[in-house]
Amino acid sequence: MAEAAAKGDPSPPTKKMRTDDSSNAVDSTTDKSCEQVEATSGEDELFSSFEEFEIIRILNNSEEHKMLAVEGRLQGRPGTAVVVLQKLPFNADKIEEIFSRSTNLLEIFHNDIYYNKTALLPSELNDVRANIIYPAEEKHILRFERQSCSFVDETPQLYKEITKPFIDSSSFSKEWIYNILEHKKEADRIIFEDPDAETGFILVPDLKWTGEQLEDLYLQGIVCRRDITSLRDLRGCHIPLLKNMHDKGRAAIKEKYGVPAHKLRVYLHYQPSFYHLHVHYTAISFEAPGTWAGKAHLLSTVISNLEICGQYYEKAVLPFTVKDNHPLRSKFEEKEC
Amino acid sequence: MAEAAAKGDPSPPTKKMRTDDSSNAVDSTTDKSCEQVEATSGEDELFSSFEEFEIIRILNNSEEHKMLAVEGRLQGRPGTAVVVLQKLPFNADKIEEIFSRSTNLLEIFHNDIYYNKTALLPSELNDVRANIIYPAEEKHILRFERQSCSFVDETPQLYKEITKPFIDSSSFSKEWIYNILEHKKEADRIIFEDPDAETGFILVPDLKWTGEQLEDLYLQGIVCRRDITSLRDLRGCHIPLLKNMHDKGRAAIKEKYGVPAHKLRVYLHYQPSFYHLHVHYTAISFEAPGTWAGKAHLLSTVISNLEICGQYYEKAVLPFTVKDNHPLRSKFEEKEC
Repeated sequence: MAEAAAKGDPSPPTKKMRTDDSSNAVDSTTDKSCEQVEATSGEDELFSSFEEFEIIRILNNSEEHKMLAVEGRLQGRPGTAVVVLQKLPFNADKIEEIFSRSTNLLEIFHNDIYYNKTALLPSELNDVRANIIYPAEEKHILRFERQSCSFVDETPQLYKEITKPFIDSSSFSKEWIYNILEHKKEADRIIFEDPDAETGFILVPDLKWTGEQLEDLYLQGIVCRRDITSLRDLRGCHIPLLKNMHDKGRAAIKEKYGVPAHKLRVYLHYQPSFYHLHVHYTAISFEAPGTWAGKAHLLSTVISNLEICGQYYEKAVLPFTVKDNHPLRSKFEEKEC
Repeated sequence: MAEAAAKGDPSPPTKKMRTDDSSNAVDSTTDKSCEQVEATSGEDELFSSFEEFEIIRILNNSEEHKMLAVEGRLQGRPGTAVVVLQKLPFNADKIEEIFSRSTNLLEIFHNDIYYNKTALLPSELNDVRANIIYPAEEKHILRFERQSCSFVDETPQLYKEITKPFIDSSSFSKEWIYNILEHKKEADRIIFEDPDAETGFILVPDLKWTGEQLEDLYLQGIVCRRDITSLRDLRGCHIPLLKNMHDKGRAAIKEKYGVPAHKLRVYLHYQPSFYHLHVHYTAISFEAPGTWAGKAHLLSTVISNLEICGQYYEKAVLPFTVKDNHPLRSKFEEKEC
């Protein structure tokens, strides 16, 4: 919905798509249409430099993420390519080499105790990640294209008139969620399970988390019951479910990973990327995609809201951001929101 | 308070400090102690490379911001230096040069249509900003040192027992705010003013905004009345004030800068960096510091909460992040929050 392409949410695990804008990973999953291309010869010699590469257009130049995505073509070859360049964090193993005579410093200005310089590092101490998709399809281009967003204030009435019919008419498949809940898929990834029909949930690592370092810890709690589509549906009667997820989810993470409750950010997305209630658990040190106000709703706030008023989410204005080319945006615009 | 060092809030304008962690600018303001150092000879020849630089310790290696801050010393010279290296966004003017034969690509893996490479760019196409402070004082080191944070769930009772006494006992000077409200300072910076004693406010550009580009537009709305310290104090009777700020603030920005209401993020901070009610207006395209859930509270949500329950902020659990070395953190810890 808003940023519907799964910003910060688990995608269907059978696909393993990574679609959040800030991710520098390119989906390494293949599909049928790709496999047919693979037999083409000579691909391994492609892209040893950008010598034969011609830029068609810039898809995104993100100052925030120091990421540049372009669409281009290869001289004398069919089809287009998407190239994503991503500057990397400083490599802690190379810090001694970075702070040596091999780094040149050019002065921009010097005022008192403050020196402002341009540093020129040897290329190998300042490498850049390049992810290339070739031949690229339209969907690859769309995924990396910068999308502008707007805020909408969703009143209860606008939810009924616009958002709800949109959700109902869209075909969001939930099969992959039910596969997890029924232990048909990813059973070995389950960190914790409470099978209670009313208050139960399953805790699994998010697909975006490698599971290797605690700095970007990211898990998902998926509710067992299937009748709650999103935050909007929550009522006072759901408080036991939410408290259960708050308490047992954090306790399970403490036990499995040693990360205490106060070092976790626990929240729901609105709009979510799929309409089966789920809760995000991320490390506080990790600025996960979709933690901003107007997208993330802290679970302790949600519980507090329902304790203040059991009909809170039946009455509240819920602001959220929506991409400008999203069908919902134009529907809200017609209502002058 | 939480991130008390003015993350996203205006600092006293007479100082023009820029203290948000994500800023790559080093404060160029001088003070008396600095001026005495300036006469020392030979400084302009310092830092042409890091040849004579010795690392004492890493202050922060931010993967998120691709920023590295270290404390070090210069061989044979007194005092310590803080060096902050910051990777820069890709330079749009040099894109043709980047996508040329001068960029080498080394293969990491190749799977089907997906190529994963390391790109080695010529140094001058991949420059790094270096900000150096020498000689550095303790406050400079503290400013760049990574601070870990924790979440606390502030119940109404904990507010009364811990937060409120802390605010009351701390000497947060509000003189600079009253100077603005009384037109003694910054009168020429006022974008809009509604002088009503109950519902009035003054709109000024935030000090972190250059005012030059709309992408990072950032203004502050400062309430005229002096009796509301923060979000916690808001009650149903304040709805007219908040609606006035929502409507007239956004209208003034539309008139002055041409940015429509749905392209603005309008929010309060809790905890704020100073305890006189104020509202942040930023461009939606700008990921301003402190827009995450648990810090930013969207104004339309605040109004909606008070409409649902006039005593909402008297009853609500307000979660927020607090730095682990902040006095509030230990007080909450004693209560096992």
